[in-house]
Amino acid sequence: MTLLPDNPLQVDGIVGFGRRLRRGETSAEAATAAYLSRIEVLEPRLQAFEHIDADGALAAARPLDSLLSAGTDLGPLMGVPVAIKDIIAVAGMPTRTGSNLDVTDIIGPEGPFVRALRRAGCVILGKAMTEEFARGGPTGLNPIRGTPWNPWDAGTHRIPGGSSSGSGVAMAAGLCGFAIGSDTGGSVRLPAAFCGVFGAKPTWGTWPLDGVYPTCPSLDTLGPLTRSADDAAIVVSALSDIAVPELDTVRGLRLGRPTHHFFDDLDAEVEACVSAALAALEKEGAVIVDVEFPEIEGADDFFRVVIGGEFLAGMGRERFLADRKAMGFILAARGASGLDVMADAYVQQRHWQDTACRVVADRLRDLDAVVTPTIPILPAPASDFPDLERATRLAVPISKNTYFANMFRLCATTMPVHHFGSTLPVGLQLNCAEGEDGKLLSIGRAVEQVIGAPAAPDLKGFLP
Amino acid sequence: MTLLPDNPLQVDGIVGFGRRLRRGETSAEAATAAYLSRIEVLEPRLQAFEHIDADGALAAARPLDSLLSAGTDLGPLMGVPVAIKDIIAVAGMPTRTGSNLDVTDIIGPEGPFVRALRRAGCVILGKAMTEEFARGGPTGLNPIRGTPWNPWDAGTHRIPGGSSSGSGVAMAAGLCGFAIGSDTGGSVRLPAAFCGVFGAKPTWGTWPLDGVYPTCPSLDTLGPLTRSADDAAIVVSALSDIAVPELDTVRGLRLGRPTHHFFDDLDAEVEACVSAALAALEKEGAVIVDVEFPEIEGADDFFRVVIGGEFLAGMGRERFLADRKAMGFILAARGASGLDVMADAYVQQRHWQDTACRVVADRLRDLDAVVTPTIPILPAPASDFPDLERATRLAVPISKNTYFANMFRLCATTMPVHHFGSTLPVGLQLNCAEGEDGKLLSIGRAVEQVIGAPAAPDLKGFLP
Repeated sequence: MTLLPDNPLQVDGIVGFGRRLRRGETSAEAATAAYLSRIEVLEPRLQAFEHIDADGALAAARPLDSLLSAGTDLGPLMGVPVAIKDIIAVAGMPTRTGSNLDVTDIIGPEGPFVRALRRAGCVILGKAMTEEFARGGPTGLNPIRGTPWNPWDAGTHRIPGGSSSGSGVAMAAGLCGFAIGSDTGGSVRLPAAFCGVFGAKPTWGTWPLDGVYPTCPSLDTLGPLTRSADDAAIVVSALSDIAVPELDTVRGLRLGRPTHHFFDDLDAEVEACVSAALAALEKEGAVIVDVEFPEIEGADDFFRVVIGGEFLAGMGRERFLADRKAMGFILAARGASGLDVMADAYVQQRHWQDTACRVVADRLRDLDAVVTPTIPILPAPASDFPDLERATRLAVPISKNTYFANMFRLCATTMPVHHFGSTLPVGLQLNCAEGEDGKLLSIGRAVEQVIGAPAAPDLKGFLP
Repeated sequence: MTLLPDNPLQVDGIVGFGRRLRRGETSAEAATAAYLSRIEVLEPRLQAFEHIDADGALAAARPLDSLLSAGTDLGPLMGVPVAIKDIIAVAGMPTRTGSNLDVTDIIGPEGPFVRALRRAGCVILGKAMTEEFARGGPTGLNPIRGTPWNPWDAGTHRIPGGSSSGSGVAMAAGLCGFAIGSDTGGSVRLPAAFCGVFGAKPTWGTWPLDGVYPTCPSLDTLGPLTRSADDAAIVVSALSDIAVPELDTVRGLRLGRPTHHFFDDLDAEVEACVSAALAALEKEGAVIVDVEFPEIEGADDFFRVVIGGEFLAGMGRERFLADRKAMGFILAARGASGLDVMADAYVQQRHWQDTACRVVADRLRDLDAVVTPTIPILPAPASDFPDLERATRLAVPISKNTYFANMFRLCATTMPVHHFGSTLPVGLQLNCAEGEDGKLLSIGRAVEQVIGAPAAPDLKGFLP
């Protein structure tokens, strides 16, 4: 059996790694080398990456170590190796966008977010697999470039969730310190939930989208997938002006539990894990409050029209029509749904969104957060989605709890709760109001303290 | 011959009226009664109003006088009678929107802007005529409710400019202290320029649009038509948090004069008046600088798509199709132009606008303002526009210099300069960057000090 080096952040996360780094007990180069070794061993079966830049990563890590020795500390992310979703331009690496088509002219050069990652001292390992143009649906299926393998089942190829599929798999399998995804209707939270890691969709506008493929710019948000709420808080606060205050208890937190939609038709394991997690929070003094969001019923029309129009605008109608034969069957159908969307319908949906956002914000005013299962079901085998009919129908429930945050401009996180009774991952979602990212991550950390975290997946079955 | 009472603000404007009011030399009631008398005499031929509320205005004026006597001063607009464009809801008055169709359900109740006018002590005389839904083009023609008569030619029915046609005519004929219009592509500045008064289009978003018909909400701006730049500065600063600093000279002001588009194909009188006005400013030390705005070339596509989509969204596609037979031939055609606009085209135009706005803002950075003729031609006889072909073709040049400010989110004013050599009105337009409304009005006042103002029109020909 091949040797699998330890994940340098498995035990003590970004803070622990940073402490050891500054004590001289480890180095950016050692962490990078460890992740590259793990990738070498596991990637052949997991297929989490579109591109791995081993030489470039090591070449970036070494001067960080020298810099730190010389007394320059770039902050809490210094020396942490990261994987970046492959719809995001990174200088010196290809951008495939999960496709065989070249859209680098649309994406443009590396943008300010990746530059900020570099300035914070992160080491970029490579580009994580994505659905085509981050628009293949919530499953993570990519018929063109391949579908990463969910690390929680070595026997059956289960869907990883999408569209940041490779980011979720790389994070869950310990192939990076944290991963960057993007979220238009759940695309950070879905792979995080299906892969059993923490994921955060910050408020829209937190980070600029230059150098990122425009899937639906009025909804797109970059976001981290991390080992824990603690790590997410560090990543977000290091890369923005968002402060994450300490919160040492969940006592007195008012958590809204929607009475409709979000808790409907749950798989038994999802129901059991989420209920047990909420019971644990109640036992510690959190207050679970019934709440309703009938506005969610507008989602189907809203997403059909708004993503339909914006996706087509980003690619260009003529280009989409010319290139659709080179697209996978899921994206070709989803992209085509925008072809007959009229401008007045788009304007009306955006207007409806503005109004509904105000209503939802009002409903959130006397709550600290809204709690829901992140996904109502467990990750299904990839073979359940062989054709357009099934890929469409079976995908519907997956994102029904996540698009809420995009549509109503909230921030949201998912954290794993399957240690309450499932062998496959289950996520607990928290939503807070627009701009309350600091509060959301504070609550996330306090919740994590109460409910604990599951063990990492057993990866033995993936070893050569 | 009927007696025409003096216009209470003709000589000394809002400031002078306010001084006399506070000295007890006049009253809100007297000013209101004077305007109502002028309206009674002139309105039969000018047709500036859709609705006149003589009793309501007098009933509102009297308690203002009592309030002031009792020591409560509502500020600089106290007691000033105003006319409000009839796409704006005013409690207790009908809203016809220039149409025979009832769209009051779309407009909703009186909004915060009109409430602010009332709280500032303004007396609402009535509703000024508008083009249908403020979307009949730049001429002011309204085949359904009637086209107000431009007060500068009693012999020929000349177009007043639009869409705030009645606001322009009421202001020019001295039928109100100031008038409120709305401006989507020039609809305040065009009637102000054709009617020889001052008009201001503030930066988009200066005032909320609740209670205003949504012609194109991403471009619509409320704005005042006034006797002078001084009066506009008082109105804007009294109704917003915009400060208008004193500026006692134009010396050193850098005024950009576009080398293309804006000065092309001018009527000889327009060319003469604008050149003379600019020469007068140069003589006082203003610096005229060549500047180019090639972005203006995108205007045709931009307005077709953006107004097309938003107008149809505001009315509703089904409603437009059902009601178009009851619309005038100009609006029916203009509204229909939105029927085949696709969402992706709309999104692309809005994206283009964002990019172009940044470019234009950069070009403005080393200029104090951009100067242009407001309209390249003189107001033509209404009979020149008898059918759709001519109403469309002959209207094209009218708004070619005003839509610039809407498209690129600038603020802009027009002031009359026909005393430099024309019997019919000519406007000089100033544009400043987004949010620089205070600076724009400061410059407007300083320019007005240099170039002076034309006399009011001779209204004898309109008397019964």
